[in-house]
Formats: sequence, structure tokens, C-alpha cells
Amino acid sequence: MLHTIFFLSSLLIISSHALVQDFCVGDLKAPEGPAGYSCKKPSLVTVDDFVFTGLRAAGNTSNIIKAAVSPAFAAQFPGVNGLGISIARLDLAPSGVIPMHTHPGASEVLVVTQGSILAGFVSSANDVYLKKLKRGDVMLFPQGLLHFQINSAGVNSIAFVSFSSPSPGLQILDFALFANDLPSKLVEKPHSLMMLP
Amino acid sequence: MLHTIFFLSSLLIISSHALVQDFCVGDLKAPEGPAGYSCKKPSLVTVDDFVFTGLRAAGNTSNIIKAAVSPAFAAQFPGVNGLGISIARLDLAPSGVIPMHTHPGASEVLVVTQGSILAGFVSSANDVYLKKLKRGDVMLFPQGLLHFQINSAGVNSIAFVSFSSPSPGLQILDFALFANDLPSKLVEKPHSLMMLP
Amino acid sequence: MLHTIFFLSSLLIISSHALVQDFCVGDLKAPEGPAGYSCKKPSLVTVDDFVFTGLRAAGNTSNIIKAAVSPAFAAQFPGVNGLGISIARLDLAPSGVIPMHTHPGASEVLVVTQGSILAGFVSSANDVYLKKLKRGDVMLFPQGLLHFQINSAGVNSIAFVSFSSPSPGLQILDFALFANDLPSKLVEKPHSLMMLP
Amino acid sequence: MLHTIFFLSSLLIISSHALVQDFCVGDLKAPEGPAGYSCKKPSLVTVDDFVFTGLRAAGNTSNIIKAAVSPAFAAQFPGVNGLGISIARLDLAPSGVIPMHTHPGASEVLVVTQGSILAGFVSSANDVYLKKLKRGDVMLFPQGLLHFQINSAGVNSIAFVSFSSPSPGLQILDFALFANDLPSKLVEKPHSLMMLP
Amino acid sequence: MLHTIFFLSSLLIISSHALVQDFCVGDLKAPEGPAGYSCKKPSLVTVDDFVFTGLRAAGNTSNIIKAAVSPAFAAQFPGVNGLGISIARLDLAPSGVIPMHTHPGASEVLVVTQGSILAGFVSSANDVYLKKLKRGDVMLFPQGLLHFQINSAGVNSIAFVSFSSPSPGLQILDFALFANDLPSKLVEKPHSLMMLP
Amino acid sequence: MLHTIFFLSSLLIISSHALVQDFCVGDLKAPEGPAGYSCKKPSLVTVDDFVFTGLRAAGNTSNIIKAAVSPAFAAQFPGVNGLGISIARLDLAPSGVIPMHTHPGASEVLVVTQGSILAGFVSSANDVYLKKLKRGDVMLFPQGLLHFQINSAGVNSIAFVSFSSPSPGLQILDFALFANDLPSKLVEKPHSLMMLP
Repeated sequence: MLHTIFFLSSLLIISSHALVQDFCVGDLKAPEGPAGYSCKKPSLVTVDDFVFTGLRAAGNTSNIIKAAVSPAFAAQFPGVNGLGISIARLDLAPSGVIPMHTHPGASEVLVVTQGSILAGFVSSANDVYLKKLKRGDVMLFPQGLLHFQINSAGVNSIAFVSFSSPSPGLQILDFALFANDLPSKLVEKPHSLMMLP
Repeated sequence: MLHTIFFLSSLLIISSHALVQDFCVGDLKAPEGPAGYSCKKPSLVTVDDFVFTGLRAAGNTSNIIKAAVSPAFAAQFPGVNGLGISIARLDLAPSGVIPMHTHPGASEVLVVTQGSILAGFVSSANDVYLKKLKRGDVMLFPQGLLHFQINSAGVNSIAFVSFSSPSPGLQILDFALFANDLPSKLVEKPHSLMMLP
Repeated sequence: MLHTIFFLSSLLIISSHALVQDFCVGDLKAPEGPAGYSCKKPSLVTVDDFVFTGLRAAGNTSNIIKAAVSPAFAAQFPGVNGLGISIARLDLAPSGVIPMHTHPGASEVLVVTQGSILAGFVSSANDVYLKKLKRGDVMLFPQGLLHFQINSAGVNSIAFVSFSSPSPGLQILDFALFANDLPSKLVEKPHSLMMLP
Repeated sequence: MLHTIFFLSSLLIISSHALVQDFCVGDLKAPEGPAGYSCKKPSLVTVDDFVFTGLRAAGNTSNIIKAAVSPAFAAQFPGVNGLGISIARLDLAPSGVIPMHTHPGASEVLVVTQGSILAGFVSSANDVYLKKLKRGDVMLFPQGLLHFQINSAGVNSIAFVSFSSPSPGLQILDFALFANDLPSKLVEKPHSLMMLP
Repeated sequence: MLHTIFFLSSLLIISSHALVQDFCVGDLKAPEGPAGYSCKKPSLVTVDDFVFTGLRAAGNTSNIIKAAVSPAFAAQFPGVNGLGISIARLDLAPSGVIPMHTHPGASEVLVVTQGSILAGFVSSANDVYLKKLKRGDVMLFPQGLLHFQINSAGVNSIAFVSFSSPSPGLQILDFALFANDLPSKLVEKPHSLMMLP
Repeated sequence: MLHTIFFLSSLLIISSHALVQDFCVGDLKAPEGPAGYSCKKPSLVTVDDFVFTGLRAAGNTSNIIKAAVSPAFAAQFPGVNGLGISIARLDLAPSGVIPMHTHPGASEVLVVTQGSILAGFVSSANDVYLKKLKRGDVMLFPQGLLHFQINSAGVNSIAFVSFSSPSPGLQILDFALFANDLPSKLVEKPHSLMMLP
């Protein structure tokens, strides 16, 4: 045992130098770069940087879409910073819908854990891929494509969605088109942008 | 409406050429390259390529570890091929454990959907990050590091784990060390590899 | 000079083995993978694989949007395969518009070479970035975000747009929403997907 | 409409957290990392960060090469920071030439917008790919390979060149070899480096 | 010659702006991000940032494993920061062994420069790839897989190992399992993690 | 022990499906893509795919440069295919020189194992980084930049060079400029390309 301790101390010198890139917990107050947030000092990192408890409870679905998206992206869950993955919780009350949206720069995997969900995406070729998903079913939404989820059960449905990016973004269609500050002239003629002759 | 149709046909010519990289559903029988499987022909792709129903039911936990890992990686779920993400289901019967293992080349995000799980990972600096997770809790395991999951509930526990790779691999420690075909001389002196003086 | 020839022949042996990844001109008939098309045999590659003459003339703008997109993506211009870049030509007749669209997985740089163009994009935060561009002006559209271009001159306008991908895709909004084969029930209630109360 | 406003405010909370990686406009005075400059604070970003007007006019070709390269790289055009693309303008007076050079770490796409240009690159196998390009023609120069452009018209020629990197670098051959501060002994015997026996 | 100088000054203006990403020598005291350390100011960079002399002498092998690993990773050799490569020196006294370990997130190439080494790795499929290497032999250890090296000569053996990452990490197995601060309950029942019934 | 066997067989089913991306030994006769060669079938892979013995002996330096480069790139050593690393051996007889060259798309780390070498590279800013290296010294050559190595000992010198790519390419300057098939008109006026007024 004495030997082991001796060995440990000699090798740990190596390790403490080489470890820096095991992870890079985001320091949300430090400079941010194209690859993500600056790293929190390793000596300050604890297990709680790698655990997120904010998805235990349902999000508030008392809104017009009767749905909620609760993200655990790098901004909420700094442990995923730089690691190419993140997660969110979807809550869909009866008749709830996550309207047509994209995640610029991330693919998504959805798994239903309660209820049932009708989900779909639209490809660049304008094909629709649509499926009613039961509990335990998984669906893949390729990077950057428009997609949506609709509660197809009479009860609350829940899903967890994972992303191939720690900061996948979220661009909801009607926000983008109708709730923004486009010049009034454009707003009056939305068909010029939307092709609705 | 006539106009729209006219417009559609003229633009679809562009689209049908440019779309090829929306996704690349894996053709498991065609040549495979470093980036993944060859793509199934787009004309043969259906919504079922993007849906995986194999995680509905619990895996078989009647084994020595009282646990099961059910993967939806590119080999089982070709829709994720090339998209930088995949998923698996963990089932842990009472006292079940997923023993110490790594995923070479992928980070992992775990969410508990039933029961409770004690999970941990070990960093290169030899620090242990250990937490008891309740239903809805999320934990992050950085790329390539040793980690494990233990059922900490008296009942069956379930988790879904997502990976930052469509083919994350799975190297379980005692397999690697004791169940392989190392020369007998090495097997007789495993401490020379394992540092157990 | 004799020396040089001697030297050439000895070193070319090295070179001919090591060169394979200078480029990978796409073989459109061979298997395709997540990273792009299979490579044409180097011995068959000529300079014409790296030159594209299809953008000399204006595209046909006799359509409802009075505009044309002429792509030189990997499918049309196999020389860009695997090299992380491609280009297209935009032609906008008076009143022409490229309607709101995204390129899943690619950023875009536009340069106006004739006329003037009003261009804009919408961020995930629902902010609009809008500018009237003169000849020689450059505008950047970040990856995956909704954007559009409108002719703001009384004459034909031309722009060249480059992409950070050899196959950037092209998802035009009203195609995605109204010209696809969504179930009639959904089509009748598009507001459930589009949030138009 | 009331409903919409209600909905907007509830969802924008999500969006404002998750958006950070839509873009990362470079802050040229903040620390720089391997992936690019630190990001300007999103609240300070305006459309002018995404527009570059410095390429409207011809560069100064009153020099020995009768040519000018006007870059819109991350250092001049911070909007491209982290987005894998940039652009530059080439002006070639009659007899003008951009001498043999490389861009370490970026492929290039050139489009001729005025006049005509003789362009070429040399592969690792020592093959030359050479073509005279007319207005509207596109040529691809694979990453890191030596290439050049020569005005082949009797008038000024113009091209726009795009790169698969926001900071493609530019290493011009005769600079590298003859204008640097190599020890005089080496300079006196350049053939020892250049193989000109 | 006058002409050249004139030309140099005009072109260097371009160059000095565009060069920033030739390299990013790590500034170990500045913020670190997911892609590596912040860059040292180019004006402060000298050739010594790109040269590492710490591998001239053998590491100290007077320890229980009779072996030493001397790293030249980004933390010791900041010149490799952001460039996707690093190197280390292995010294193995007679009977020396580098015990089973992984490098999370990096592949490794080893070349024997003195003596002879028995090296091996274990795949996810639990296959062992084992070989006795002579001087000049090269062996490849794929990313993230468990591997080891044993001196198979009666004298000191030396190898240089290169990595596909500037900060490859180093997770030695028995450290990870037995020298860490796992709760005593787990330590008393290591078989629950290690599967040794 | 019985238990272990039982457990192995149940888990190996998982493993055998999920392992495919541990490595991708290149099948040099199958289609090649932008990311590298197609993968050899895992069942045909042996340890010899990961071992390269071609660097044991010195390369032939009986040539005009009195030097030899012996590559172990993907084309010679298919085990590195897709793994982001490769290696080569340099032999420099007295007065030997590896003339100015670049590796398009790869950084290089050199370690001297015999003799002494004067090495240098030129940055885009036209700065020269030059150093005389002794045995055991390491030098880094950033991606795509011109560099060279000269024997600075009176005896044979040896170095091993590693690359951040399995197929780094090799573009030697005087080949590129003088030994190729440029049109005679250009060859007669090489200064128009090389800027030697």
C-alpha cells in the first residue's frame, strides 16, 4: 500500500496538468466564444455543475399553446458547455402544441415518457414525416428542419428532447414572422415574404 | 392557386437537387466510412426510418447486474446516422447496476424517468462526481470518462441516456480486463496492468 | 536539370501515395455518406471538375416570385464535395423576392453585384436584422436562421451567395407549410401549427 | 391578439436564454481563442455587424502586381466570426496577377464578376489545374493548395472569393521565401530550400 | 528590389489583418474555452513557443510502475493549443509498465525509439489487439479505448506517443477505481462496480 | 464464474451492435469519401492493421536532397483512417534537407531522435520561426504553413513527425512551381507568379 501511495503522488503530477479538457463547465459571466462559454476554474467545479434538477416539475402550460418547453441548455445547465449535447422537457396539456419551429444547428431526439404525441418534420424537398408516438417511442428531427409536436392524448403528455448541441437555439415560426419588428410595409404584405398569393 | 403551383414546380427543381444532406439514413448493408454508414436512397426513406419503437418495453434485467441497456444507436436506429446524436434506455431492477464503463468519443446526458439512481463519474484528476438522482433529474457524463449508475430505489428505475454521437460505443470495465483473450501470462499477473500491489 | 528529374521521380513516389485527401470530387453515382459523396478516382479528375459555368446566365425569373436561385452545390458542382463551401446565383427581377427560408446547417454570405437588394434575417430572439444593400455590399446570414431577399431596385438585381457547406439545403417557408402533404385535418387548422389566433 | 401577446411573453423567456449561439459577432478587443474571437454582447449587436460595405470600391492596383485583395475576414467583418465562412474582393488591372499563394486551413470559391481571369492551382501530386474563366464562371481551390489568378482581359477584372473559414490566412510565396528574415546564410543559398540545382 | 519593397508594404497591410488564425499559442493565465486556451498576443509569440525541450531527458522511472510519462500537451507546450495534436515521451525501465488507461477524446500513435515494448488495446467488443513492438515500429490506439504498454526488453525502452488532441487527458484505471474518494460503502463492495462475482 | 459468463453473453449482444465506430480501418479498394476510406469489415481486422513496421529502417537518402520521407499515412497504414492522426519518419544524411513544403490541412509535431536538425516555418505575416533542435527536442509546425528541415549535424539525423490528419498531403515547393505542366508561356515568365522583379 505504501508503494501505491508513492506511485499516486508521482503520477498525479502528470494528471493535474493534462486534465484541463475533460470538461469545460461554462462560466456564464466570463467571455463567450464561438465554441461556447469560458470554463469555470476546475477547482471550483462540483458535482452540482453536472446535475440539473430544473426538469423535475412540469412547465407552466397555462398559455395559448397549452404547452411548455423547459430547457437545460448551456445557459441553464453550464455542465454541457462544449460537450455537444443538451436536453429539454416538453409538457403538453390536452390540445397542447409546440408550433412549427427549427433549432438552427442541432438535430433533436425525442422520447415520449407520458401520454402520446403526434410529431412531424418537413424536409427541404417539402416531404412531411409524421407519426403518432406512444410512451417509450423515439423520434429524430434532423438538423435545422421545421418540426412540431401535438398532444394526441386526452391527458397531459411529457417528452424529453435531446440536442446535438449545448446551445441549440429555438426559432418559432410565428414569432419570427408576425411578432417581430419588420417594417410596417412588409407586414402589410406578408405574402411577399410568405408566398400566399 | 394556379400561380402557386407554377411556382412550386419551378422551385422544386432546385430543391430536389440540393436536399441530399438534410439527413443520411444509414444503409446498414452498404459500405461504412469514418463518418458513418452510407445513406439510404432518399426515395426509399419513410417516417419509420426516423421513429424507433424498441424502447417501449423494459430490457431484460434477469442477469447478474440486474440491469439492461437498450440502445437506439445508428446500428439499431439508422435515422440518427451522421447527425451527432443517439439515445438508449436504462432499466435497473432493485440492486441493479450499470458497472463502471466509458463511451469512447461521446458525452452522455441522463434523465431519470422512474425511481431513483445513484450515478457518478471519475475525472482524469481522479476526482469522483457522485449524486443521487430523483425522477426528472438530469446528469451529464463528459466524453470518454469512466462512469456508472446504481439503482438507489427499492423498485425498478428507468432512465433515458442521450449521446453526442450516433455510435457512442460502450466499453465495460470488467469485460475489458477479465473476459478478454489476453495471454495467460498477463492474466495471471493482472496487477501488472491494474496496479494492485 | 538532370538532378532535378532524378529528385522528382524519387519524391513523387511519396507524393502519389499521400495525396488522396487534397480533394474529393463527388462521384454522384457512387454511395453517399454523412460527410458527402464518394470521391471520383483522382486519375479521372480534370480541371473541369473544379470549374462551374452554369452561373454565367441569369436564371429564369418568369415566375410568381420573379426570382431565381441557381445553385452550384455538390450535386451540381461536385468539386466542392467535402470542402465545406459552395455558391449560388440569385436573380431578382423588379419586384422579385426570395421568400423567407432557411439553410439547415449552413451560414451564408451574400454579395450584391448588380442593382440593390433589401435583405434581412430573424434571430431566435425574434429580432429582425434588415438592410438595403448596394452593389458591392456584403451581408451575413447566420446558420439555420430564417432570412429573405427582396429586389429594391427598379431593374434586375444580381447577387452571389456562398455557403459554409457543400450541400446547404434550402427550406422555403410556404412550401414547408402549405404545399406539402400534411393530413387535411392539420391543413384545415394551420393556425394550430402557426400560432395565428 | 391578446392571447398572442400573452404567449409571446411566456415563450420569450425561454428564447432569451437559449439564443446565445445564433451568432457570435467578434469583439476584436476581447480575448481570442482557437475557435475565434470572443462574442460581442448580444444586446450591442446591430444589423451593421452583419453588413460590410468595404468591398464597394476597387482596391488600389497601383502596385507591382497590379492587383489588390480586399478581405472581409473576421478581423475586418466581425459578423462572420465562428461561422465558417468569409469573403474577399479581387481587383486585377490589365496584366495584374495575384501571385502563387495558399490559404492555410481554408478552401476557396471564386466567381468572376467583370473581365476574365486565368486561374490555377497545383495539387500535392504536382498536377496543375488551369482554366480561363469568363464572367459568371466559378472555380474551386481546395484547402491549403498553392494557387494564383492572372488577369486575362485587356481591362480591369473583378472577382469575389469566398472561404470555408472566417480567418483563412494568406501566405504569398515570394514573401515567405525572399522577404523574410531568414539567416543570411540561408538566403545566400536559397536553392538548398527551393531545390533549384 | 525597390519594387519589391514597395509591393511588400502594400500587401503586408492585408496580411497583418488576416493572419490571426495561423496559430493560437495558449496563454495559460487567460480564460479558457471549450476549444482551448485564449491566444497569446501574436506580437509576443517567439519560436520558443513552438519548441519544447522538456523531452530530452528520460522521465523518472524510480516508482512502482518503473515507468514515466512526460507530456508535451497544451498545458506544458502552449504552441499546440487549438491545433489538434500533441506529444509525450514514455520511459520504461526493465519490467516497467504503463498500466491500463484511456485518453478521453484522443487517438494515439506510438513509435518505439529504443528497446522493445509489448503494447495492446481492448475494443468495445472486448477483443484484445496485442503486439510486441521493435525499434521503429508504430502502433495506433483508437480514441478512448483502454490500452497499456509493457517493457519487453531487458533494458530501458523509450517511445514517443502523439495524440489527435492538444489536451488528450489521461485516465489511469486503478486510480479511477481505487485511489479516489468514492463513498466507503462503494469501496467495500467494489465488485458491485467492477463485476467480479 | 458461471454468473460472469451468463452476464457476458447477454451484454455482448449490445456491444457487438454498438461498436462499429471504435475504429474504421481503411479498405483501400472500397469507395473513399471526404472523411476517408470505407471501413474494412470488423471481423477481418487484426492487430496488424494497427501496427506499421515500415519505419524500422532508414529511407533512401541517395538523392539530390540527401533526405527521405517515409510516410505512415492512411494510404500506407490504414489503421489511422478516420482517426485524425498519422506519422512519418524523416532521414537526413549529412547536408540533407527537406525543402520548403506545406501539408494542406494538417499541423505537424516533430521530435528529433538522432543527430540535430535546423527547422523553421514561415507565418502568413512573413515571420520566420527558426530553431536548431537537439535529440529529444520537439517542434510544432502550424497547419498549412510553409516549413523545412535541414540536417545540422555531421552525421545522419532522424526525426519522427506526427500529423493532425490521417492523410496530411505533402506539397513541395519547387515541384509545385517548376516541375509541373504549366503552359510554357507561364514557365518562361515565372516571376509573374513568383514576384521576383
